[in-house]
Amino acid sequence: MSNNVCKGTSRIAGCRFSVHPMTDDFVNVILSALKEVDTSKVWLETDDVSTCVRGKIAHVFDVTEAIFSHAAKTGHHVAFSGTYSIGCPGDTDGDVYMAENNRKLNTPIAINQYAACDFALYPLGSDSYMDKIMEQIEAAKQRGLTVEGIHYATKLKGEADDIFTTLENAFTATQEHNDHVVMTASISANSPSHQKGEDDE
Amino acid sequence: MSNNVCKGTSRIAGCRFSVHPMTDDFVNVILSALKEVDTSKVWLETDDVSTCVRGKIAHVFDVTEAIFSHAAKTGHHVAFSGTYSIGCPGDTDGDVYMAENNRKLNTPIAINQYAACDFALYPLGSDSYMDKIMEQIEAAKQRGLTVEGIHYATKLKGEADDIFTTLENAFTATQEHNDHVVMTASISANSPSHQKGEDDE
Repeated sequence: MSNNVCKGTSRIAGCRFSVHPMTDDFVNVILSALKEVDTSKVWLETDDVSTCVRGKIAHVFDVTEAIFSHAAKTGHHVAFSGTYSIGCPGDTDGDVYMAENNRKLNTPIAINQYAACDFALYPLGSDSYMDKIMEQIEAAKQRGLTVEGIHYATKLKGEADDIFTTLENAFTATQEHNDHVVMTASISANSPSHQKGEDDE
Repeated sequence: MSNNVCKGTSRIAGCRFSVHPMTDDFVNVILSALKEVDTSKVWLETDDVSTCVRGKIAHVFDVTEAIFSHAAKTGHHVAFSGTYSIGCPGDTDGDVYMAENNRKLNTPIAINQYAACDFALYPLGSDSYMDKIMEQIEAAKQRGLTVEGIHYATKLKGEADDIFTTLENAFTATQEHNDHVVMTASISANSPSHQKGEDDE
């Protein structure tokens, strides 16, 4: 990859993530979720700590949302933690399928799936990105999500599908103006704390 | 906090993290770990997605390592994912105990605890940090850890205590030269994949 990295949606994006089902049956939950998701438009590799997917932005978000959603629909307490990345200067051209079109392969299945998410956006090498982040936070509120500033992150609460839409839009908009963008997201579904949290509010 | 942020170990560091025990008994594992750890030198708050600790660098690493280690010693498959941060321009002076001395309160208990860790270091606003990272990777190898470059992260394998030492040293060294440093770490213990992974090597 040249040093003069282009910006835009034709670039290689990726996500390194883990899904943690808090149940004795965690292996089956993970393997079933991976089996139910169409991952044919991304390069995918799983090791003992995490899974890495690489491809176009749309497919990286499509696949990560689908894997989380399939795990969450089991009803178990499931946590997803991932780092989305684009434009890393040390990145290579390999391990990716970029010839695919943008049509997503997985249909959102997490209907009425409440989730909570801590996310943080890091446009590296830039010091004027707060406006972009604030625009995305405003868009998240319009979508009906609860948005709260916390130390080191922003918390989103609401429909899982709306949370992933917010993450994808925030990442896409930011990388249009910055070569190297990193976004972390920790997402939790079916937590025993959620009901309590909602009652408190 | 003034815009002219000072560098060094007197600054407020923090970590937002989650511990995910993959067992039906996850609530007890988490609560027991939190109870066994001395957290009196950090500010600590837990919500439905994550826990945030803030204080001096030494205590932030002491407490996060101790919580992970206590959870891992149950023998369950446990995953830790966290973001360490210092010098965020939007940070405040609050929610922290900085008057404490640097003596750590928790004794390493994870003896012979194999773990694997994906970590990534982001010195924001800097483009000449690779030397610092390479120094820390060399130090990790000297400590006996297996070190492997992977997409978006570096993988460390070996003793959990050596992994946390590497993380703390990498973070400490980098923030001495950069105002704002973020480091992500995903650490896994007692994974059923580990044995297979070791046999394969």
